[in-house]
Amino acid sequence: MTELLTLSADAQDLLFREARTANRFTEEPVSDEQVAAIYDLMKFGPTAMNTQPLRIVLVRDGEPRERLLKHMADGNRDKTANAPLVAVLAADSDFHEHLPRTFPHAPHAKASFSDEERRAQAATFNATLQIGYFLMAVRAAGLAAGPMGGFDAEGLDAEFFEGTSLHSLLVVNIGTPAADAWLDRLPRLELDVVVRTA
Amino acid sequence: MTELLTLSADAQDLLFREARTANRFTEEPVSDEQVAAIYDLMKFGPTAMNTQPLRIVLVRDGEPRERLLKHMADGNRDKTANAPLVAVLAADSDFHEHLPRTFPHAPHAKASFSDEERRAQAATFNATLQIGYFLMAVRAAGLAAGPMGGFDAEGLDAEFFEGTSLHSLLVVNIGTPAADAWLDRLPRLELDVVVRTA
Repeated sequence: MTELLTLSADAQDLLFREARTANRFTEEPVSDEQVAAIYDLMKFGPTAMNTQPLRIVLVRDGEPRERLLKHMADGNRDKTANAPLVAVLAADSDFHEHLPRTFPHAPHAKASFSDEERRAQAATFNATLQIGYFLMAVRAAGLAAGPMGGFDAEGLDAEFFEGTSLHSLLVVNIGTPAADAWLDRLPRLELDVVVRTA
Repeated sequence: MTELLTLSADAQDLLFREARTANRFTEEPVSDEQVAAIYDLMKFGPTAMNTQPLRIVLVRDGEPRERLLKHMADGNRDKTANAPLVAVLAADSDFHEHLPRTFPHAPHAKASFSDEERRAQAATFNATLQIGYFLMAVRAAGLAAGPMGGFDAEGLDAEFFEGTSLHSLLVVNIGTPAADAWLDRLPRLELDVVVRTA
């Protein structure tokens, strides 16, 4: 079926078919320049009204990493301790402050998000979409990602985001996969379970 | 910065740099085979505990399309009426029924989702991640996507998902972009607004 796709087979493999969630990494560092290149790619993914609410907090070694580890689930703590780079992915509920600049043809865009609950929901939904683009862009950089939902979000938010408009959605280990980086591929749902015609 | 990436420049363009949200399409149809190829690629994107809660409902021309149009926001109705294919993307809160098969090494996985609210939240979050993969896979097929949040979700769910465990998240027009398919690219947030080091 790959011949129905425009994307090259190599690129399909890099982003989807051979890419895997990594649990172990080599010691090779991930540079700020690599992170900038990842952002420079993922930023083009679409969001509703160009809201772009995703925020990326890089947690490097030392004291910030120690502060993060306290809030990770037991099963995730070791792999997070040993990843070259960890990113906390968060949604910014004050994304609407940027709309006069990022959605300039709609002068009322910012005011349409005056309701706090609507704003938090839009931030979470669109930032989550952007996490999909982010994970693809990490893979595009030849790196592996290890996304983890297993952490104490309330504790992490108090630790890193107290007094801000950010709330955490996912923690992602990033690096070059080690030889024993992953388990066997888990089964995917069949086409007829997922896709149907109305 | 593109030389810091492993993904080829062509693939970067196809998926991110030149890909755009399309508002108008040619009449060229989108086949079931193309949809199958798109699913066969996007299904490999990671979800928490391999939950894979995204469901894709294809809305082709005729009566189903008419039923969908009633629930679209005024600004989206015409473009949805004229797209070769429309997909309603939904989250299935009963995704956990598949876990004994899709996450077989953890026998308690299904039971860990017995709480309905936790399940609905996990369904929405992971299906939204999968929407990110889906949009990339549509582009990988050489097609353009037009994602739209502007619809009456309650009305649409009553129309299409009454008595099921599905709830809609996004409606996406899909097809070959027409010559006048999009507006100018909107500005993206600068690196230092989005990425910081803890």
